[in-house]
Amino acid sequence: MTDRFPVAILGASGYVGAELLRLALGHPRLEIAALGAKRQAGVLPETLFPRLSGLDLPPFVDVDEFDGSGCALVFCCLPHSTTQETAARLVPAVRVVDTSADFRLRDLASYAEWYGTPHLAPELQRDAVYGLTEHARAALGSASRVACPGCYPTSALLPLLPLLSAGLIELEPIVIDSKSGVSGAGRALREDLLFAEVSEGIRAYGLGGHRHTPEIEQELSGVAGSDIKVTFVPHLVPMNRGILTTIYVNPRAGVAATDLQACLEAAYAAEAFVQVLPAGVVPATREVRGSNQAHLGVADGRGGQAVLICALDNLLKGAAGQAMQNANVMLGLPEDIGLMAGTLAP
Amino acid sequence: MTDRFPVAILGASGYVGAELLRLALGHPRLEIAALGAKRQAGVLPETLFPRLSGLDLPPFVDVDEFDGSGCALVFCCLPHSTTQETAARLVPAVRVVDTSADFRLRDLASYAEWYGTPHLAPELQRDAVYGLTEHARAALGSASRVACPGCYPTSALLPLLPLLSAGLIELEPIVIDSKSGVSGAGRALREDLLFAEVSEGIRAYGLGGHRHTPEIEQELSGVAGSDIKVTFVPHLVPMNRGILTTIYVNPRAGVAATDLQACLEAAYAAEAFVQVLPAGVVPATREVRGSNQAHLGVADGRGGQAVLICALDNLLKGAAGQAMQNANVMLGLPEDIGLMAGTLAP
Amino acid sequence: MTDRFPVAILGASGYVGAELLRLALGHPRLEIAALGAKRQAGVLPETLFPRLSGLDLPPFVDVDEFDGSGCALVFCCLPHSTTQETAARLVPAVRVVDTSADFRLRDLASYAEWYGTPHLAPELQRDAVYGLTEHARAALGSASRVACPGCYPTSALLPLLPLLSAGLIELEPIVIDSKSGVSGAGRALREDLLFAEVSEGIRAYGLGGHRHTPEIEQELSGVAGSDIKVTFVPHLVPMNRGILTTIYVNPRAGVAATDLQACLEAAYAAEAFVQVLPAGVVPATREVRGSNQAHLGVADGRGGQAVLICALDNLLKGAAGQAMQNANVMLGLPEDIGLMAGTLAP
Amino acid sequence: MTDRFPVAILGASGYVGAELLRLALGHPRLEIAALGAKRQAGVLPETLFPRLSGLDLPPFVDVDEFDGSGCALVFCCLPHSTTQETAARLVPAVRVVDTSADFRLRDLASYAEWYGTPHLAPELQRDAVYGLTEHARAALGSASRVACPGCYPTSALLPLLPLLSAGLIELEPIVIDSKSGVSGAGRALREDLLFAEVSEGIRAYGLGGHRHTPEIEQELSGVAGSDIKVTFVPHLVPMNRGILTTIYVNPRAGVAATDLQACLEAAYAAEAFVQVLPAGVVPATREVRGSNQAHLGVADGRGGQAVLICALDNLLKGAAGQAMQNANVMLGLPEDIGLMAGTLAP
Repeated sequence: MTDRFPVAILGASGYVGAELLRLALGHPRLEIAALGAKRQAGVLPETLFPRLSGLDLPPFVDVDEFDGSGCALVFCCLPHSTTQETAARLVPAVRVVDTSADFRLRDLASYAEWYGTPHLAPELQRDAVYGLTEHARAALGSASRVACPGCYPTSALLPLLPLLSAGLIELEPIVIDSKSGVSGAGRALREDLLFAEVSEGIRAYGLGGHRHTPEIEQELSGVAGSDIKVTFVPHLVPMNRGILTTIYVNPRAGVAATDLQACLEAAYAAEAFVQVLPAGVVPATREVRGSNQAHLGVADGRGGQAVLICALDNLLKGAAGQAMQNANVMLGLPEDIGLMAGTLAP
Repeated sequence: MTDRFPVAILGASGYVGAELLRLALGHPRLEIAALGAKRQAGVLPETLFPRLSGLDLPPFVDVDEFDGSGCALVFCCLPHSTTQETAARLVPAVRVVDTSADFRLRDLASYAEWYGTPHLAPELQRDAVYGLTEHARAALGSASRVACPGCYPTSALLPLLPLLSAGLIELEPIVIDSKSGVSGAGRALREDLLFAEVSEGIRAYGLGGHRHTPEIEQELSGVAGSDIKVTFVPHLVPMNRGILTTIYVNPRAGVAATDLQACLEAAYAAEAFVQVLPAGVVPATREVRGSNQAHLGVADGRGGQAVLICALDNLLKGAAGQAMQNANVMLGLPEDIGLMAGTLAP
Repeated sequence: MTDRFPVAILGASGYVGAELLRLALGHPRLEIAALGAKRQAGVLPETLFPRLSGLDLPPFVDVDEFDGSGCALVFCCLPHSTTQETAARLVPAVRVVDTSADFRLRDLASYAEWYGTPHLAPELQRDAVYGLTEHARAALGSASRVACPGCYPTSALLPLLPLLSAGLIELEPIVIDSKSGVSGAGRALREDLLFAEVSEGIRAYGLGGHRHTPEIEQELSGVAGSDIKVTFVPHLVPMNRGILTTIYVNPRAGVAATDLQACLEAAYAAEAFVQVLPAGVVPATREVRGSNQAHLGVADGRGGQAVLICALDNLLKGAAGQAMQNANVMLGLPEDIGLMAGTLAP
Repeated sequence: MTDRFPVAILGASGYVGAELLRLALGHPRLEIAALGAKRQAGVLPETLFPRLSGLDLPPFVDVDEFDGSGCALVFCCLPHSTTQETAARLVPAVRVVDTSADFRLRDLASYAEWYGTPHLAPELQRDAVYGLTEHARAALGSASRVACPGCYPTSALLPLLPLLSAGLIELEPIVIDSKSGVSGAGRALREDLLFAEVSEGIRAYGLGGHRHTPEIEQELSGVAGSDIKVTFVPHLVPMNRGILTTIYVNPRAGVAATDLQACLEAAYAAEAFVQVLPAGVVPATREVRGSNQAHLGVADGRGGQAVLICALDNLLKGAAGQAMQNANVMLGLPEDIGLMAGTLAP
């Protein structure tokens, strides 16, 4: 066991935390030092999840009494607006990979505006890295604190960043129409997430402005060098996992869909977790369920737009998988270790 | 029974035809004169559909031997490219309500291009009415032949036509992102429609150009008075029924989302089957499943676009329900007769 | 309107109450006098259910302040253990159709044992009729208070009662394996009813003894003339509506499955809402979704058992539909009025 | 690569074969020597399954031209009644793990009766091992040919074999009520497997006698030492993966459910892939989806029966997972190698 890094997972009773636990259990270089939960402190994980029977995991510890001592790295999978205080409580040596929104927005005023509460740890925000792994790798090695992108932003930024960076598309309009499975909303007890409210139907939501919008705009504006506004509409689909994001952009004059395809292929040629599908093959969430892959596709629209499509598993490349990918880089491990499970289909 | 119009339903073993049969059985002014099918000729309907047990329906007749004698009206729910010949075989007196694409495109060349086969009944096309009921009512009363719009076009045209007609939105870009339940593909034996291929996933399709595109462009161009091209991307959602269409348009200078809302409210104030939901209420397919209603909503996008949303049941307002609505108008009956069943939820 | 009976629906914001509202709105001889709810008092129904837009329904009244004055009949669709007090509050003239368990068990001690609380209106229990319509018709005409059977008991009793009554099957073992859609659990905010907990899985529950057990045993014992115990195991299926109950019984010596089939066919030959399917046709919930029909089937098991199968829509024949059927009989109306909507498929 | 056994997978385009491919790709001691398919011969696997992009797999070879040369072991995942001929064509040295029914029944007459065709390789049947791993381990080490149990039989035999072996339950009645996800039917193009026919419904099937019955009876009779007949009714559930089998048995006089629980706990205490859940915890398919685990539970029924429940993933412990478990034993590898992936939830 001496060659394993001790890690903790806080919020291990939620969907993202439990997914990280699953990944950590199959990871040859990590060991579980602690599992933290709030309401479930003291409970054995297998009581909550019979699937963990026989694994002899320790009982959940109280997140509010956890300081990270003895851990090389802590995965924080807590609800938004609770992680800033938790992170501030950890001993300085421990490194943090956070899947909440608490450290994603560099602009503290923007955070306060979108999340309705002032930022509680501005000094910790300062050196937080926005961890879209493929575009943040250089900063990850020495990062103390990594904010993993939201599931929707991951699906929007992977296709858009290289194209904006290469100047192939207009800065507006950028229309992002996303469709997500229900696990993206977490395990909250909300009437609109009951099976009988979700099944056999689809609906848009967040039309007044979904909280993933400022993240997307922050990162796009960063590479474009100017202030970008996007129209982003998420939809809830009756499935457990998966995000399919369809993006409508205007290619610059003289740029064809094949140029966009070539740009994305070049950008991601060496990546283990981003596949640009051949022209004519359309990304589908079923092809990435249970894997850390993002599938990208490009097509022409008749009305002058190009269509970009990204499919990923919201709990993996959109959350726990990307968190583990970041942790691997931070710990100096091969980036794909513990993450190569294939798609579970059907 | 003398106050009932005798009608036939051709293609009654398919999803749309069977839905029309259900509607006709509950309609107080229609009686079933004949049910036509191709492969199932001679079979009793209750053999195919145990739910029809005890209704004493006649066996399916062979579509190819049916001429419509004795019928006031024939509902044709046959596959695309087979209805032109069938319609040509009917006695002249019988009126036709068709749910296929065979009589939807006024431009015969466009039909040939999109459907890959020349039009077989050009003379019948000439006086066919495109039956989006709310916008075609005047022509329906005396129509011999009504081509019901496709499910996707219905969901796109209901919100777009009044706005274009009023000059409130730019003619481009018009981006139509549609999400449909699986029954929209009919009962075809296709591997990609198997439960285990569809469930727990979402995918885009028809990126090279879905056949509903020319219909949408034909009708939009008609009211706009100029040639309109749209970017239309349909998606397959793991549910049986329902279409949710999210449309991204650019309001003209000085036009706000509230103006679009007001325009739609005025356009459909007197309509029984189109509800413009109050600002802030977002259409969802679960609210229209099993009913002939279309729900419309309007919202602002951050990137300068306005967002229009339409929800409807693809088998009802998107197919059989609208067909019955058209038939009611054609026969001089109240438009809502036999169509007032409420939404089935959950 | 003078030919319409004024009715109230209490608990109209729940699944069963909302289903009764849908039925009542399509019923030619009823008018809505009041809609009662607890948490939603004062709210307009269309605020909760956009599908009710444009119907001009009155706001929900507070159930606790409702006494039924002016109503011919009140449908009570309130949670278990709250209806006894509500019913006691109503003016004596009003008749009650209750879909809760509060008046189903004739033995007050059994009620207290299974529901963990003493019966609060024993005098009202005395003349309550257990309303499995096909087997209770004689008593319904003059009943003041009708307790509609639970969804599971309806599916078990319809096939079992005639066979026990005719002495064709042994009194034990009787094994009842039921599979239900999720709406049967109501709209309660329970983590185990969230989409992401239910979808893509099946589980048994209530193994310690589901509360529908004593109802089933009460009615079976009644016709058998001796104390019957059953093994009843319900399962939760990832679908909104539907119950499929598979029952394993031992035919008495010399009795074949064809005899059981003949007995059921004779028992239900004149019934509008029970169809005994031909031998070899297996009941399926999809064939009864959205209708008030129960489908019955019989088959031979290899191990000496006979297999009885019943499919019904838990919200209709299993709850609101049967409630309306009972109300029709109580009010002297044709039993099938307002209940003839066909199966919604797919 | 010298420490990897070369294996082939025949029928790799079907659900079970593709699942074995996924397992083999993550297995540290196997290498893919060949992938066989019938209709897809010559096609690249990633053309059929975009999820395999970037893995550089060889094109499918024609099953009919494959003789297994150079392979240590061949996984046959071909349709029933085609494997006997395929197996006879292989070079003698190659060992076979078969997931079809072709070598499961020791009695050739029974095979002919249930499958409607004579056995084509009786001499190969003679030394075939019925590979329910936990009960066949001794014979697997030297086996040339292992017939993996069907998914239903696995779920029935795991709880029943130890109880019959210990004489704790009566030999009849044994009622087996199984509920399966749709992938169990394979990828066949059948109308009744279309999404719109399966979703939102449940149905029984195979009432005339499902082909998994003789397997179950063969193995139960084997341990009981007398001829056992079971009543087995499978049901189709709208989910991709998972089998939940509920079994109703009569404990012998003086035997309580706790005795059955203790017997199962003892029988499987050392097993990696069978978990007997604590009393009161009910198996659910969601807890085993994506893993090779079988979860067992025991409860009392009121009517004198005991209730046994087994949950497993039909494509893993019910097919490909058990096949790999058998292969590991045959090759002298640790039994759990390549099979320890945790449950994917939700």
